[in-house]
Amino acid sequence: MSSGKQIASIDDFQFVRILSSTPEYKSICLLLENKETKNHAILIINKEPFNTETVNEWIKTISLEYIDANDIYGNYSLTLDQPFNENKCTFIYPCTEKHIIKYSEQKRYLIKETGEDYKKITLPYLMENNVGDVTWIRNIFEKGYEKESIIYKDTDPDTGFLLMADLKWDRKTMSNMYLQVLIQKKDIKSVRDLDESHLPLLENIRDKVNHVLKEKYNLEKNEIIMYFHYQPTYYYLHLHVTPLSLNHPSRQITSLMLDDVIGNIKLMSNYYQLATLSFIGKEFDDLCQRHLQRA
Amino acid sequence: MSSGKQIASIDDFQFVRILSSTPEYKSICLLLENKETKNHAILIINKEPFNTETVNEWIKTISLEYIDANDIYGNYSLTLDQPFNENKCTFIYPCTEKHIIKYSEQKRYLIKETGEDYKKITLPYLMENNVGDVTWIRNIFEKGYEKESIIYKDTDPDTGFLLMADLKWDRKTMSNMYLQVLIQKKDIKSVRDLDESHLPLLENIRDKVNHVLKEKYNLEKNEIIMYFHYQPTYYYLHLHVTPLSLNHPSRQITSLMLDDVIGNIKLMSNYYQLATLSFIGKEFDDLCQRHLQRA
Repeated sequence: MSSGKQIASIDDFQFVRILSSTPEYKSICLLLENKETKNHAILIINKEPFNTETVNEWIKTISLEYIDANDIYGNYSLTLDQPFNENKCTFIYPCTEKHIIKYSEQKRYLIKETGEDYKKITLPYLMENNVGDVTWIRNIFEKGYEKESIIYKDTDPDTGFLLMADLKWDRKTMSNMYLQVLIQKKDIKSVRDLDESHLPLLENIRDKVNHVLKEKYNLEKNEIIMYFHYQPTYYYLHLHVTPLSLNHPSRQITSLMLDDVIGNIKLMSNYYQLATLSFIGKEFDDLCQRHLQRA
Repeated sequence: MSSGKQIASIDDFQFVRILSSTPEYKSICLLLENKETKNHAILIINKEPFNTETVNEWIKTISLEYIDANDIYGNYSLTLDQPFNENKCTFIYPCTEKHIIKYSEQKRYLIKETGEDYKKITLPYLMENNVGDVTWIRNIFEKGYEKESIIYKDTDPDTGFLLMADLKWDRKTMSNMYLQVLIQKKDIKSVRDLDESHLPLLENIRDKVNHVLKEKYNLEKNEIIMYFHYQPTYYYLHLHVTPLSLNHPSRQITSLMLDDVIGNIKLMSNYYQLATLSFIGKEFDDLCQRHLQRA
């Protein structure tokens, strides 16, 4: 895929500022500038996970420096040989102002969206921005795009759906399997539109996905997690499907589990029209700004 | 705090097996054995986050090795000088079988707990195991333990609570602030016990914690997140409180946000007695095993 070109040398660039840092995942994102052309570059660095296959080799290169201890628990600073302590990075060059905003730290806000707030703030915003018009999904359903990613297809107009490998998954490594369900019906924007008339759709997805993943990957139903995001990234009803074994970063506090969603609708058909669904909004997001202005 | 002793040398130990690996957080946990005594040791290694304060120094030591590129996006392997690429580790020695289980990879299961399942499986389990008897909490309320961690105290018998710094927080670094709320009332095990009679308690916590964090740390209410875990680690009603800025690992898909809990109870007083609350159970956990056997 080498259709781009290698940068000559990192020494041609100087450090401008840190755009963002994610200490929990051990990654950082820096803004650099070409010393000559003054063009900007973004350098995203991630520490590599410990390699479980070469542990027998790298463990021999460990050296420890004592910090302190309490009973049987000792703290040390640890180094291991350079070749086993690599980092991975992406270098974006030349980059635009849009890239800089995308990779910059954004302030986050907790937005408490009541059923009323959805009707008064979120829904009008979605209408104005014509969010139901998702061309890339139409291309999949109508033009046969991404055919090779489709794992299972149910074409029933009411309860049908596509089970697809997410682009983030290599379709091989079971531990980081990441699938998506796109429903056949076109008029459901998010969980906010769901009521008891959609129970056959939701139960069909639950049952058939469980069945297919058992057949194809030998995963039991309690080893799989299916969930919606609220707010979703795009407003065409879809679910995320991952094995429980990996603590996938997309599985957040604002994810709603399919079983719980079915339970809530059975309890109260209009639950999702009335419930308070808090979400985490980002500073540069227009919908978040509208909610902040109304609060 | 050096009440323990430093191990002589890592070379006295040999590698037995990997107990667990968490690639997303770049950590690994190894079982070792003392070559002479045959006693076991556990070595937990975490890669350190990139240091944002010394970036001007370590960026000068970077070297890149080209992997591939697509348009303006290039992938490289990156090394930086040893002193800036450290790891932190905890060495537990000698360790027991209990430590080994605690740090071993455990299979995870998605447990779908309906209101009925709570009454038939979870509640009897909690009763048999006398989970309401939490001595360490009694020590805080009755004997004044951990006084230095208390940030705010409301002693009302019905709506009162303690706001405390969690042990995991150093009480200085704002970015990883982690607080806990322990309620004054002793008879509430978890969200499953909550109904409209507890709205004054929940709203009092919400309002006072927001007020205190604004006064003391200048945090606005939409910059703070308060949540319950379900299942909780211990069955004495408590909340976790963190700033939104950090994507705290305790903020999981099975966390319930305070605002949403208040909303659900207002919608339906007995919501938490009836709702399906899915949780992620671990293989070696007795409660998880009971649910699996009944499924």
